[in-house]
Amino acid sequence: MKLWQKNTTVDQSVDTFTVGQDRVLDMNLAAFDVMGSLAHTQMLESIGLLESEDLVVIQKELKQIYQEVLAGQFTIEDDVEDIHSQVELLLTRRIGDAGKKIHSGRSRNDQVLVDLKLYFRHEIEEIVVKTKEVFETLQGLSNQYKDVLLPGYTHLQIAMPSSFGLWFGAYAESLVDDLEMMLAAWKVTNKNPLGSAAGYGSSFPLNRQMTTDLLGFQSMNHNVVYAQMGRGKTERILAQGLSAIAATLAKFAMDGCLYMSQNMGFIKFPDHLTTGSSIMPHKKNPDVLELIRSRCNKIQALPNEIALMTTNLPSGYHRDLQLLKENLFPAFTSLKECLDILKLMLDNIEVNKDILNDPKYDYLFSVEVVNDYVLKGMPFREAYKEIGLSIEAGTYQPSKEVNHTHEGSVGNLMNDAIKAEFDRVYASFGFDQVNEKLVNLVL
Amino acid sequence: MKLWQKNTTVDQSVDTFTVGQDRVLDMNLAAFDVMGSLAHTQMLESIGLLESEDLVVIQKELKQIYQEVLAGQFTIEDDVEDIHSQVELLLTRRIGDAGKKIHSGRSRNDQVLVDLKLYFRHEIEEIVVKTKEVFETLQGLSNQYKDVLLPGYTHLQIAMPSSFGLWFGAYAESLVDDLEMMLAAWKVTNKNPLGSAAGYGSSFPLNRQMTTDLLGFQSMNHNVVYAQMGRGKTERILAQGLSAIAATLAKFAMDGCLYMSQNMGFIKFPDHLTTGSSIMPHKKNPDVLELIRSRCNKIQALPNEIALMTTNLPSGYHRDLQLLKENLFPAFTSLKECLDILKLMLDNIEVNKDILNDPKYDYLFSVEVVNDYVLKGMPFREAYKEIGLSIEAGTYQPSKEVNHTHEGSVGNLMNDAIKAEFDRVYASFGFDQVNEKLVNLVL
Amino acid sequence: MKLWQKNTTVDQSVDTFTVGQDRVLDMNLAAFDVMGSLAHTQMLESIGLLESEDLVVIQKELKQIYQEVLAGQFTIEDDVEDIHSQVELLLTRRIGDAGKKIHSGRSRNDQVLVDLKLYFRHEIEEIVVKTKEVFETLQGLSNQYKDVLLPGYTHLQIAMPSSFGLWFGAYAESLVDDLEMMLAAWKVTNKNPLGSAAGYGSSFPLNRQMTTDLLGFQSMNHNVVYAQMGRGKTERILAQGLSAIAATLAKFAMDGCLYMSQNMGFIKFPDHLTTGSSIMPHKKNPDVLELIRSRCNKIQALPNEIALMTTNLPSGYHRDLQLLKENLFPAFTSLKECLDILKLMLDNIEVNKDILNDPKYDYLFSVEVVNDYVLKGMPFREAYKEIGLSIEAGTYQPSKEVNHTHEGSVGNLMNDAIKAEFDRVYASFGFDQVNEKLVNLVL
Amino acid sequence: MKLWQKNTTVDQSVDTFTVGQDRVLDMNLAAFDVMGSLAHTQMLESIGLLESEDLVVIQKELKQIYQEVLAGQFTIEDDVEDIHSQVELLLTRRIGDAGKKIHSGRSRNDQVLVDLKLYFRHEIEEIVVKTKEVFETLQGLSNQYKDVLLPGYTHLQIAMPSSFGLWFGAYAESLVDDLEMMLAAWKVTNKNPLGSAAGYGSSFPLNRQMTTDLLGFQSMNHNVVYAQMGRGKTERILAQGLSAIAATLAKFAMDGCLYMSQNMGFIKFPDHLTTGSSIMPHKKNPDVLELIRSRCNKIQALPNEIALMTTNLPSGYHRDLQLLKENLFPAFTSLKECLDILKLMLDNIEVNKDILNDPKYDYLFSVEVVNDYVLKGMPFREAYKEIGLSIEAGTYQPSKEVNHTHEGSVGNLMNDAIKAEFDRVYASFGFDQVNEKLVNLVL
Repeated sequence: MKLWQKNTTVDQSVDTFTVGQDRVLDMNLAAFDVMGSLAHTQMLESIGLLESEDLVVIQKELKQIYQEVLAGQFTIEDDVEDIHSQVELLLTRRIGDAGKKIHSGRSRNDQVLVDLKLYFRHEIEEIVVKTKEVFETLQGLSNQYKDVLLPGYTHLQIAMPSSFGLWFGAYAESLVDDLEMMLAAWKVTNKNPLGSAAGYGSSFPLNRQMTTDLLGFQSMNHNVVYAQMGRGKTERILAQGLSAIAATLAKFAMDGCLYMSQNMGFIKFPDHLTTGSSIMPHKKNPDVLELIRSRCNKIQALPNEIALMTTNLPSGYHRDLQLLKENLFPAFTSLKECLDILKLMLDNIEVNKDILNDPKYDYLFSVEVVNDYVLKGMPFREAYKEIGLSIEAGTYQPSKEVNHTHEGSVGNLMNDAIKAEFDRVYASFGFDQVNEKLVNLVL
Repeated sequence: MKLWQKNTTVDQSVDTFTVGQDRVLDMNLAAFDVMGSLAHTQMLESIGLLESEDLVVIQKELKQIYQEVLAGQFTIEDDVEDIHSQVELLLTRRIGDAGKKIHSGRSRNDQVLVDLKLYFRHEIEEIVVKTKEVFETLQGLSNQYKDVLLPGYTHLQIAMPSSFGLWFGAYAESLVDDLEMMLAAWKVTNKNPLGSAAGYGSSFPLNRQMTTDLLGFQSMNHNVVYAQMGRGKTERILAQGLSAIAATLAKFAMDGCLYMSQNMGFIKFPDHLTTGSSIMPHKKNPDVLELIRSRCNKIQALPNEIALMTTNLPSGYHRDLQLLKENLFPAFTSLKECLDILKLMLDNIEVNKDILNDPKYDYLFSVEVVNDYVLKGMPFREAYKEIGLSIEAGTYQPSKEVNHTHEGSVGNLMNDAIKAEFDRVYASFGFDQVNEKLVNLVL
Repeated sequence: MKLWQKNTTVDQSVDTFTVGQDRVLDMNLAAFDVMGSLAHTQMLESIGLLESEDLVVIQKELKQIYQEVLAGQFTIEDDVEDIHSQVELLLTRRIGDAGKKIHSGRSRNDQVLVDLKLYFRHEIEEIVVKTKEVFETLQGLSNQYKDVLLPGYTHLQIAMPSSFGLWFGAYAESLVDDLEMMLAAWKVTNKNPLGSAAGYGSSFPLNRQMTTDLLGFQSMNHNVVYAQMGRGKTERILAQGLSAIAATLAKFAMDGCLYMSQNMGFIKFPDHLTTGSSIMPHKKNPDVLELIRSRCNKIQALPNEIALMTTNLPSGYHRDLQLLKENLFPAFTSLKECLDILKLMLDNIEVNKDILNDPKYDYLFSVEVVNDYVLKGMPFREAYKEIGLSIEAGTYQPSKEVNHTHEGSVGNLMNDAIKAEFDRVYASFGFDQVNEKLVNLVL
Repeated sequence: MKLWQKNTTVDQSVDTFTVGQDRVLDMNLAAFDVMGSLAHTQMLESIGLLESEDLVVIQKELKQIYQEVLAGQFTIEDDVEDIHSQVELLLTRRIGDAGKKIHSGRSRNDQVLVDLKLYFRHEIEEIVVKTKEVFETLQGLSNQYKDVLLPGYTHLQIAMPSSFGLWFGAYAESLVDDLEMMLAAWKVTNKNPLGSAAGYGSSFPLNRQMTTDLLGFQSMNHNVVYAQMGRGKTERILAQGLSAIAATLAKFAMDGCLYMSQNMGFIKFPDHLTTGSSIMPHKKNPDVLELIRSRCNKIQALPNEIALMTTNLPSGYHRDLQLLKENLFPAFTSLKECLDILKLMLDNIEVNKDILNDPKYDYLFSVEVVNDYVLKGMPFREAYKEIGLSIEAGTYQPSKEVNHTHEGSVGNLMNDAIKAEFDRVYASFGFDQVNEKLVNLVL
């Protein structure tokens, strides 16, 4: 029996079709649904819509349920529609009619909105923390191998000398910009929709600022129509944040697969991190990198998928929005797994230190030699011509030394400056303040 | 004859195919290419790669060309490949061999990178300024019509009382979050790639901090490999920023088209802003809104298009990246036109003030009445049952009054708080500081 | 222990990451993996790579396993990597070393390729059959309500008289064109990749025509490099086929949601197929239609997702391709559920027969009246002017009669011609011939 | 002054915004708009809505205009809104009031629908013809280089011997399947929408079968509501057809760029088809291939772009659909240019014949040797072990001979069978019948 039912039974196949995977997916929301109710009920009491005695009992029991969720002892029962109903049901079973009062002054629309926001904040934090670990690992490798040279390609043609210091360091710096996108997603997420009811507010004198503070939100989605409009939009923006990190990982994986090819032979991984073949001892299949690439490209497709599912829907709630859970929730898990396993791979990467000895890389240095002549006073076009002629004559001999000194070049990676930028963006999230608020709420 | 040519002539059809629309699109970059050269040559002189006398002549002539660009007197000649070659050609024609020296210490790769960044900054500013105008217009309408009620829908079913104050105000608030995305795009854009050469730096002792300061960049893309990796990535992130605003506009347009339907009849526009039919006097076709919707949905597809064109490319420059100009440049123009014409439409919108008199909207107020009973002390379920029975009995009489007082509701729109948030994000761009730097550079 | 392992243990987290959801998803392939092996072993025996006695035992046991799959008694064990290993393991357990011989002359690459093709054929058939049921239901409704008029809209503005006959019939005809796309997908799918080994063929004298015939394929992917290239490509094309049907369903659902709005009020569904509210008796939420729309829009995003995951991969197998199972397999189920529940909804739809009595629809008929005058000899511009004046003068009186007689109009729906086209396309699949072959194989 | 205008002047900025690029894009439709009018007027006369004398004059003048279009003498004037108005204007200028009669019994909605269908058919034919040329070129190269071996990769790891015969041949076969998608798009396109008026038919006794025959359509979009629904849908399906070919070209280009890298060195192009550098003589930049890849990936994004612009639009015309011209029209040109230049590249490709002499490819043959032992009677696992040991001991000596004989393998490319399939699909389009009809119409 559902809350909104009068006296017809919904067709069983309709029920199955509409509930979909909600029972499974909503398990992710359990802890956050309880948090929302803890804040909401405190607020209800403060405006006289809940008696103080009821509040005491409700808070105690909600905190108990929260602990059960953490301990893995919470489930959504088979005939219960969603997480909100399950929490209310448990509460009512345990403390009687008082349990039913937690629904006053809100609708399931703003209840799920706030659950999602709290959950998204949690996932953003986890992903950002893992991104930090990969960032630091990449910077470590950049520093460690700053003197190991690598051919640099343009158009996949051998072009200029590069280094492992540059290569690892570039991907680290890429994550700084990705974090800016995650920060924008965080800011859009970190606003309280609770109190918007079904998207048109309520005639109860709700104190939305109070729940905003209790739940550690930076601000609120003020306009109630906009609060509802944020569903789908928040998901799309968050997916764009994820896709920024995903794009960096996918590109690194592409480089990695190429660099592992015997035709390049720039990097290696130990056997237990690759798959291979007994009769092809050189073959070390980069399955992990390929699957990072594939998963991350799938995540890159997510913002568009969300756009297609929400575009041209007029304002106001539509059931379509429920389905977005299916897209986004698994993407969090997948990206976190990619970050973890990429770190494992990086911790075990082996770089080939003698790459440029191969004569096919000799021409890499021709621009260096031209520039060297120029620095010694020869006009550029003359220097260029001289090297061109010596190459044609077969007398060209590269020194294979790289004297790059400017900011961000082989000899001056600026990893510290990049780290300072990463740390600055990281600090802007303010995870600690948020978590402190939540601890106060649930303890 | 191209710089990189030795002595074979490139096939004519190859030339046509590879140059593509560059001559037309590069006109957008002209002013910015000159700025880049102004900064680059100052820096070259400072490190001894350009004589002071040459610098004086070059700067004077570049500033002259800049004025010609502003005056619409600059063109890319038919046999010139791109904007960089055209500027160098003009310079050499006018001041002789000194003109050729501006290319030292950079490659066309970092030259176009910095041109694009400067151009993107300019376009971001224009779009953000126009967004501000639409934001203010929406807020003006929200305040003006805050007392005019509108049915609120869920599932496209008549659900709860809403208002034009909420409706206009919601879209204004939506633009605040969109601006956060634009700000992230701005931050990613506002870093200097100049000095990364072909993506692997240079053996010249370039001073990249100096060009960073001269061009008003917040910081630089430090790692030179990352600087090149930013091509395509910056475009994708910027397209995501545009798509945020576009999504808000498209949704408003969808609402608008629906609200203009005779079945709704909530809003109208004067005849000169719609198309119609003499024999169907009620017909006022919302072509402008439909085209805003369509253009904005096209912009929403852009990040994915860029992703498809850049995904799985290994690091290092590929010619593929050139084609991204074709996608992004027209999107700027299109979005700006949408913002302008939306403002025109909003300035002329007429709202229907008597919507809720129609008895089909009576049930909108049933929840209000239930809540009213609850506030007067009746338990919720009892109040709910009583109203349900009175509806069934046909005795239900709504008061059609809405007493919503909480934050963001019909009676308390919080437009000032929303405006404060918009202004705060807007100020974070720091357009003035950037523009001051550029004025110093070109005057 | 995996086939390709020498003597290092793959890291546990690598194993978890790379196997992913394969154990669950591969259950869909079980029956088809057995079919592939039945055909492959017959062929091996025919070319002398398998002894006849072994063949007899193997075929008997494979058929037994096939029955177990059908009976739901087959599972993939926890430490078994995929479906291919599980079938080989079962076989070896039951019949000893002969079981291992089924792997000769193929690799897991072409084994999974053929499994996928057989599975896709099966799913295409199921979807096409369900599409036929929806088609017939729509045509039934079109015929049943051919005389019930409906306003026709352009620009969401009331424009011209339409009818339920046209509305239902249009969606039926849409499915004819969708079926053409499914047919193209079927043709691409219905070619045998078995024998391509790891994508470069084999030095064994395989008889690929024989397995092509045994498995009921129309033809083969001849070139072995192309056979491997078909992975990802077949999925993308098939997803485009699904998306054609999905687009039609999503559009119908959008119409349906709009038509159910109280502002339109064109159609209704009984209470057990909608969700509602006791105190808003008019509210009948079209959750089923909204979820059809949402699911189908998700399916519309699928071809792009696959493109993003496969674009710019060079030829040859990459592990990325494995992940495509995750995208496509659930889409089959989802689309089939949408087709089933749409049929249920259509079987229960109620149409409002008195829509056009509302005076807001009077102008619908103005073009009819103009045409009527023209048919009676008045020049068009004159007739147009006269009606325009009578409307302006308030003397316009529509007859509300529609006399459309041409092909495909209100009075001449041509449902039979449309049905004939549907049946012709349907017959082109040739499901019966395929199924006959498979029955011969497994019995 | 527009047809639908009463007496208000449309705002100038509205006019500019709504007309957009139509004047330019509609030039593509000119010839087809005239064809549509030729057929429509013949039909009008046959049902008595046009006098025979008028028909004679109109037909003569329309044919004259058609010749002017072919001769490049036709333009859309600045103050004329679109192609339909321009043709009618010219006609009226030249033959007076009779020219206005061509608009009876149709609306601009079905007029543009039929123009688009005729134009799409024309473009499909051009693309299919060019695809045939590339197909034949690829097959020619496959036959020419069937004995030149190439390493085959899995996971970008050196895996098995392949050949240029296989490589070129695979891409040829890929085009066969792509053609199936184009054929589906052709079938959807090749149905007549004329007579559907504004999407709800007409009270005139139109003979739609007659225009269907005159214009060489296979059939008609029967249901008039569906005829209108085909707008956007036809474009999306056609874009999917284009994207199939584009995906094949993009993949070939990716292979090509990789194969041109000095680390592979498998293929080369003469200097006039690449770009290079004097001081890096080995550098041959594959700009053409990169731009084919990029353009084709852009085309791959097109179906999704169209989906985003049309999804969730209710049935009936919306102005949004106009904008689809901007997406699709340039894609035709771009793909045709890609096909042309790819043919040019293929005509000049040089393959390296001594690739496998490099010892890094020795292990390629290990599977061959194992299979060889098996064919001579040794059990597989024993053979496998023996080779594994000899590799470990450093005594492994590959014969570098490939004896593959089965269908589609190195030694048996089956290019004739593939060609037969291509020709069969090609013939199914039936271009000749269509063109014959059109010739009858315009001469």
